[in-house]
Amino acid sequence: MMKFCSECGGSVVQGVPVGDNRPREVCAVCHTVFYQNPKLVVGTLPEWEGKILLCRRAIEPQYGKWTLPAGFMENLETAPDGAMRETREEAGAEVENLQLFTLCNLPHISQVYLIFRARLLNLDMAPGEESLEVRLFEEDEIPWHDLAFLAIEYTLHRYFEDARRGEFVLHMADIPQRSRHASAD
Amino acid sequence: MMKFCSECGGSVVQGVPVGDNRPREVCAVCHTVFYQNPKLVVGTLPEWEGKILLCRRAIEPQYGKWTLPAGFMENLETAPDGAMRETREEAGAEVENLQLFTLCNLPHISQVYLIFRARLLNLDMAPGEESLEVRLFEEDEIPWHDLAFLAIEYTLHRYFEDARRGEFVLHMADIPQRSRHASAD
Repeated sequence: MMKFCSECGGSVVQGVPVGDNRPREVCAVCHTVFYQNPKLVVGTLPEWEGKILLCRRAIEPQYGKWTLPAGFMENLETAPDGAMRETREEAGAEVENLQLFTLCNLPHISQVYLIFRARLLNLDMAPGEESLEVRLFEEDEIPWHDLAFLAIEYTLHRYFEDARRGEFVLHMADIPQRSRHASAD
Repeated sequence: MMKFCSECGGSVVQGVPVGDNRPREVCAVCHTVFYQNPKLVVGTLPEWEGKILLCRRAIEPQYGKWTLPAGFMENLETAPDGAMRETREEAGAEVENLQLFTLCNLPHISQVYLIFRARLLNLDMAPGEESLEVRLFEEDEIPWHDLAFLAIEYTLHRYFEDARRGEFVLHMADIPQRSRHASAD
């Protein structure tokens, strides 16, 4: 909840603006309306000869757990460009041929994940500032009990199922709040 | 650009936070960082026996132009729930069986459109507060020169192409800034 208006410094209150149908944060002085909207998390599932690249997190939440390279999309970029940027920043890796693979809704934290299957260009990879370790995993090596986020677990399950079937399709799911950890998922 | 910190009312300046790699809005007093991220626009392409529902806009931008029901996704909802809500609000229509059909990147205005194909439940429809008119269109009736947004034009073209081919697939595109209008697209 905002305390001060970022335009005039006045007090911010809750109110339903004219023509709107839900409460927003509104400045009591200059009447500027502040909209809060969901955030996009974009990332890749980098493939190399049937193996998948994972990063071990060097930051909270889920420090030390494994994940796909992904992060908040930035202004002025496209979703695939953001996914490639995160792959570069977190894994020091370059990918190409991005195909949207999972759309995960996390309404409890107002996030949408877009994860793209992508082909690693080469075996150059190195942990970035937000990663402890980066490596390729065969399916039977995936650290299923040490994955950072349910959306990533969902994506990896669908990937190996589709790989066995020989056909990759788009998957969409609502990801519930994780029950076994207090931290946000 | 924010002028005042919404936490303490202090002055906001541009700066690169520790551990970050790009300038953000940061409070010079309490050092709160304010991240700005892209917004999601969610909507549907409602189908009824080969016909498509369009709404004529009763608001700016693009007052009087035709569009698919779509709007900014809200916090605490899923992308398909947001698309169904917009369809209800703008067209008074209920849809089911949502399938993601286009992902449009509009980096110049930091937006991502997610448009879902959806089946109209029945022929009940009525313009909401943001629409002048709502009706079904055959392909040869689509008002191609009076569409509100390039992302919608792109989506409708892909839809009729796929319908002719008999197979609907996911389409992704970068939508450039519209050159023939000064208004944001």
